[in-house]
Amino acid sequence: MTREDLFKHIQLKQSFLCIGLDSDIQKIPEHLKNSQDPVFEFNKQIIDQTHDLAIAVKPNTAFYEANGVSGWKSLERTARYIKTNYPDIFLIADAKRGDIGNTSAMYARTFYETMDFDAVTLAPYMGQDTVLSFLKYKDRWSVVLALTSNESAQDFQYIKEDKTGEMLFEKVLKLSQKWGTTDQLMYVVGATKSESLKAVRKLVPDHFLLVPGIGAQGGSLKDVAQHGMNDHCGLLVNSSRGIIFASSGNDFALVAREEAMKVQKEMALYLRAANLIY
Amino acid sequence: MTREDLFKHIQLKQSFLCIGLDSDIQKIPEHLKNSQDPVFEFNKQIIDQTHDLAIAVKPNTAFYEANGVSGWKSLERTARYIKTNYPDIFLIADAKRGDIGNTSAMYARTFYETMDFDAVTLAPYMGQDTVLSFLKYKDRWSVVLALTSNESAQDFQYIKEDKTGEMLFEKVLKLSQKWGTTDQLMYVVGATKSESLKAVRKLVPDHFLLVPGIGAQGGSLKDVAQHGMNDHCGLLVNSSRGIIFASSGNDFALVAREEAMKVQKEMALYLRAANLIY
Repeated sequence: MTREDLFKHIQLKQSFLCIGLDSDIQKIPEHLKNSQDPVFEFNKQIIDQTHDLAIAVKPNTAFYEANGVSGWKSLERTARYIKTNYPDIFLIADAKRGDIGNTSAMYARTFYETMDFDAVTLAPYMGQDTVLSFLKYKDRWSVVLALTSNESAQDFQYIKEDKTGEMLFEKVLKLSQKWGTTDQLMYVVGATKSESLKAVRKLVPDHFLLVPGIGAQGGSLKDVAQHGMNDHCGLLVNSSRGIIFASSGNDFALVAREEAMKVQKEMALYLRAANLIY
Repeated sequence: MTREDLFKHIQLKQSFLCIGLDSDIQKIPEHLKNSQDPVFEFNKQIIDQTHDLAIAVKPNTAFYEANGVSGWKSLERTARYIKTNYPDIFLIADAKRGDIGNTSAMYARTFYETMDFDAVTLAPYMGQDTVLSFLKYKDRWSVVLALTSNESAQDFQYIKEDKTGEMLFEKVLKLSQKWGTTDQLMYVVGATKSESLKAVRKLVPDHFLLVPGIGAQGGSLKDVAQHGMNDHCGLLVNSSRGIIFASSGNDFALVAREEAMKVQKEMALYLRAANLIY
């Protein structure tokens, strides 16, 4: 999927929503727990109810790995179900992987070949090696952590370099954008730091940004749209718990749809205000 | 396992070797490929032949995930086999995970509960959140990336902070050691940067260091021992390909033993020179 494809989907769906499938088995509705694969069943129903409102879907691998082999099965099933039934959905593995070259190539194989994800989130601590193996795949994306939405992001991401006065997250943005094109690289930029979005946009005016932290983590969608949007929208704003766990009853998927629709309607306003839809 | 336990095993085995199970299915001997679980069968034979020469064993999760569900089964089987048969082996998941709090807790559950690893490698880019959930488990270890052995480690790890003059990897060492004890935290420090080991030892004199990069990556064991050893040895030096893929024939496990024994004998020399064994 290219940057133009993403923009086309954004215009059609009037949305830049990414739904995070943080499908913790301990939080899914009771009535699903007797099904053969409760996590997959939960994901399937959420996706069936929300695929027309979302541009992207993002399972976080941690919630699957915690269930061992059966969790990995749920993840593979979820990925296959989405790519088979909703090929317009941009499928992101929120895996935050990062390793040296030969090992990194194995992770790329995992998410692009063994499964059919469009994108993987990557941690940049180990530098370019982390990303290069992923960039060898055509039509696949690397989503590099720049500025994360958690409180302890400040421990290291704001360290200011002596020579340049640049902070670590700025160095990551400046250096890594040389490794690939705007059709290969995106960045994670937390919504809880909306004032920092301006600084990020100066460094990467054309890239898509994956923005976590609205909803449960407290970020404002309005601020993100105001400071982060570019001429292709350039945003995928994630909501996980606020949508998928909005109800724990039999109606969970419909309530998830209602919540997703609220967010989508707000997104349509901002897209219209920016003259990206009419 | 405590720091004292590790030291006791080091003295008994006269070794501080960690064997990296980077068990790439495409590189394991042909005659194993018809067995029910070739990767597990490979690991089992390697471990049976080397457990008395090694202090630690370190599967890198990438090589298992690349095989999907069956790979995850091989990883679980390998972990269970080691903990059941060789409880003195310190079992490290080289997973390089790192995420926000609630997600990090899922990864901790994955490696400490769903499986029975003693330790997990963690990437510090997102700060303290990455590690805290892991430290809640008693008798388990977090192995934090400080200075890695790959070339592009220099992209970010050597960034020098303006106020303090400290480099990013030094900041990681200084800050993170406040999060837990020397019985909970270790650091990854690449052998390819043996001169940097001195700087690391000043900052973390008592911690164990997990040192990759000898063998295939070109680091020198002698340099590592000279600059990195402390009064509890304080080193786990990893070798992966140099041992496990030393032969691709029917004799692979015996040849792996020979290679492991060469390393162990060299390690015994350095332990004796440092008066840690007699």
